[in-house]
Amino acid sequence: MGDALLVTAGPTREYLDDVRYLSNASSGRMGICLAEEALKRGIEVHLVLGPTNIKPPEGIYVYPVVSTEEMLNVCFEVYSRHLPKWAVFSAAPCDFQPKVRVQGKIKKEEEKLWLELVRTPDILESFLNLPSPPRICGFALESGNLLEQAKRKMERKPVDLLVANSPKSFCEDTLWDVHFLYSLDQVERLGNLPKREVARRILDYLLSLP
Amino acid sequence: MGDALLVTAGPTREYLDDVRYLSNASSGRMGICLAEEALKRGIEVHLVLGPTNIKPPEGIYVYPVVSTEEMLNVCFEVYSRHLPKWAVFSAAPCDFQPKVRVQGKIKKEEEKLWLELVRTPDILESFLNLPSPPRICGFALESGNLLEQAKRKMERKPVDLLVANSPKSFCEDTLWDVHFLYSLDQVERLGNLPKREVARRILDYLLSLP
Repeated sequence: MGDALLVTAGPTREYLDDVRYLSNASSGRMGICLAEEALKRGIEVHLVLGPTNIKPPEGIYVYPVVSTEEMLNVCFEVYSRHLPKWAVFSAAPCDFQPKVRVQGKIKKEEEKLWLELVRTPDILESFLNLPSPPRICGFALESGNLLEQAKRKMERKPVDLLVANSPKSFCEDTLWDVHFLYSLDQVERLGNLPKREVARRILDYLLSLP
Repeated sequence: MGDALLVTAGPTREYLDDVRYLSNASSGRMGICLAEEALKRGIEVHLVLGPTNIKPPEGIYVYPVVSTEEMLNVCFEVYSRHLPKWAVFSAAPCDFQPKVRVQGKIKKEEEKLWLELVRTPDILESFLNLPSPPRICGFALESGNLLEQAKRKMERKPVDLLVANSPKSFCEDTLWDVHFLYSLDQVERLGNLPKREVARRILDYLLSLP
């Protein structure tokens, strides 16, 4: 394995028709901070980036994508070509997509519309299921009982590091209510931290792993 | 009535929960071009702007909004306070919204999700129904038989000027396949035009009306 890092960032979009889509307000800032920090440390960075307006730094490989499925496919491509030692999945990909994408534009004659949504592929899970996965950092964006829900995610998806935070973090320079879960019973409460600082700590930890 | 112009621009967002929303890729460029062009002509501009990254020019009134309902409410407020002589509805507001907005984040345990969508208020129609509406320019973004569908829209919503164009126009500096409908049987085919040029022609026409 080379000393390369795979990072995902930004939202994805799932189109209902040629115009309308499902998405979220993820800015991509967390992933860009990770890319910048890794670049400083001389790491080869592969950034798979959903639709966002933030400019990634020069000197890294950038792969723009739109949908979650596309994000997964490109991640697998990067994996098989570059065998990254580390992967940080900081994107907020849509987890549901319309079952059918209509060609053209759905007319709005109807007063109501029932939209059938199905799950998109789970990128984190797909990587955990690889025969020899990289060291993986995942994110858990949770409302309500954040830590409880993050622990349940860690149980289902035992990553090397799970960064839990609150949805308030979208489009801000700060990550709110940050918890680092190193394992189910090893949790560090970090409070509110600049994304740049979170990026540093994530890389410090990942690079310390064998 | 004062010599003021009301312009809407950008997409709107309709949230399913605290994170996910329905939207579209409208950039807001068409509306910004209109605002800039009107500003040059010394017109007082009120811009009601959905979430976008384009910076509006200095020297105009800007009202940021998120949802379609909010966009309508702010348009009515501008109307009642400033009695604009002209209104150009160049935004691409979501025309459907989730019937229910869930507090927190919908869990993705389910493989499928049925989402009930209901219509959002129709801003153009609401303005046409005013006792003394301003001079109104609307847009018709149509796929398939563009002109036929635009004519049907003109029939239902008889505005002073209807600008029909293709969904390809999103996020571009060019408006594709432009048609100006002055009435049902007075149609001008303009082909592909820079948005700046479309803005000039819209204002030329609106300002020529009594």
